[in-house]
Amino acid sequence: MSESFVRDYVVRFGEIDHAGVMYYPKFFDRMHRAFEDFWAEALGRNYHQILDVEGIGFPLVDVHSSFKKPYRFGDTIRVTIHVQRIGTSSISFHYRLGAPGEDTPRAEATLVVGVIDMKTFQPRPLPDDYRATLERYRDDSQDNA
Amino acid sequence: MSESFVRDYVVRFGEIDHAGVMYYPKFFDRMHRAFEDFWAEALGRNYHQILDVEGIGFPLVDVHSSFKKPYRFGDTIRVTIHVQRIGTSSISFHYRLGAPGEDTPRAEATLVVGVIDMKTFQPRPLPDDYRATLERYRDDSQDNA
Amino acid sequence: MSESFVRDYVVRFGEIDHAGVMYYPKFFDRMHRAFEDFWAEALGRNYHQILDVEGIGFPLVDVHSSFKKPYRFGDTIRVTIHVQRIGTSSISFHYRLGAPGEDTPRAEATLVVGVIDMKTFQPRPLPDDYRATLERYRDDSQDNA
Amino acid sequence: MSESFVRDYVVRFGEIDHAGVMYYPKFFDRMHRAFEDFWAEALGRNYHQILDVEGIGFPLVDVHSSFKKPYRFGDTIRVTIHVQRIGTSSISFHYRLGAPGEDTPRAEATLVVGVIDMKTFQPRPLPDDYRATLERYRDDSQDNA
Repeated sequence: MSESFVRDYVVRFGEIDHAGVMYYPKFFDRMHRAFEDFWAEALGRNYHQILDVEGIGFPLVDVHSSFKKPYRFGDTIRVTIHVQRIGTSSISFHYRLGAPGEDTPRAEATLVVGVIDMKTFQPRPLPDDYRATLERYRDDSQDNA
Repeated sequence: MSESFVRDYVVRFGEIDHAGVMYYPKFFDRMHRAFEDFWAEALGRNYHQILDVEGIGFPLVDVHSSFKKPYRFGDTIRVTIHVQRIGTSSISFHYRLGAPGEDTPRAEATLVVGVIDMKTFQPRPLPDDYRATLERYRDDSQDNA
Repeated sequence: MSESFVRDYVVRFGEIDHAGVMYYPKFFDRMHRAFEDFWAEALGRNYHQILDVEGIGFPLVDVHSSFKKPYRFGDTIRVTIHVQRIGTSSISFHYRLGAPGEDTPRAEATLVVGVIDMKTFQPRPLPDDYRATLERYRDDSQDNA
Repeated sequence: MSESFVRDYVVRFGEIDHAGVMYYPKFFDRMHRAFEDFWAEALGRNYHQILDVEGIGFPLVDVHSSFKKPYRFGDTIRVTIHVQRIGTSSISFHYRLGAPGEDTPRAEATLVVGVIDMKTFQPRPLPDDYRATLERYRDDSQDNA
């Protein structure tokens, strides 16, 4: 049984678009903020330390996401992150965006990121402690979003 | 031979992230801005008229995108939009994000949008003049991104 | 002695600009998010309830702000909000943006907002319970930013 | 008679907030984009060249702005920039945000920026060709916003 990263975020006044729902690029901004929080919780080191001190970056390579129900101003977004696949120099993360008290997600996404050296922007292998951390969150039972 | 929507956008100072490249949620913001411009060019009516006067909306249902090379501050993003598939109440758009003088795209995306009535947020059929407009931009030879 | 609204926010990866510091429009986004949190804490009702159920809005009328030291990725922004002046249909808020362990603020701002009826967008008087709430946070000893 | 920088921008779908008008931090984002375009037009060099090649930056020091009438989705923002004051290592710019066919501005702002060396983030004198360029746009008859 894998661990889960679960965190709640509130939809803000300025994230709403002309149609009265969360502007969809803001989903990706939310997912990136959750990604930053994931590392702090899972690895115990802040994302800026990972980037600036350890020199490791995770550029987005591939996104597959589906959107089923919009969020409105004041809604709570409950983000759950699992690791789907750990490659040599890439990682697949699964994001479930739900809401408290709701059984079905409002959105799901699989984001594949590369692993790069921040100095050269070239691929590099994932360090062992990162791999061990990610293994704790691995759950390949997630549907592809 | 289908028509193409092609437009250039410049990467702005505030779109850059801590890694020195365009923050990836900004790709989706750029694609939405291009989507707004597409309707004005293709249909000859502004997107706010489509939403507010004609009462038709296009919520995002599904995204599949891949990212190959980042954009930096001052780069030109050349966005090309084609229509891949026109369903009863959904449309698939293909976005190619390149740069002047480059043969290979830096990013590609397929975005599937629904067609809804903006009053009820329920699916509705695509009007005939919209369908005829989209047919002009149809090109199903694009690879899925 | 007035009460203070004090809350910490973390500078995010995507809030950094090409110069490597927080993009200045993001200061205002942060101040708005703090403003939303202020109402929830002070009045005990969420900002979306204030807007959508009670029908009261606070459009920005005037801003005076000064910036002394930039924020970098991962920094903590400690926002302190006081009320400077409560008029018939306008309110002046003072924002201090500091950091834990620092004596001097990195930025300060005075934001004057109107009080409007959300249906008509016309000025309306501030309700008594709002006025009483704001009085608790009043501190006119703040320098104008 | 001084020269003017005048440019039109369209309010985008994603710039609207829950109240149905342009989210006020987006005014500042728009002003920064206009500031980037100002340099390209006035000096004939792109802002990223100024920052990255010439190593000169203009961090915001002080803002005073007033907001009179909101923008809605699809509105055109006509931005006019003048230079109010040129100091040794600071410059005051006046922004007028109007709309085609309207006599009174919807917003006005005075933004004071410093002049810094991008390597050290320390103040530096404004180069002569920058000063000469800015003089052409100087108009101190503008009211303080």
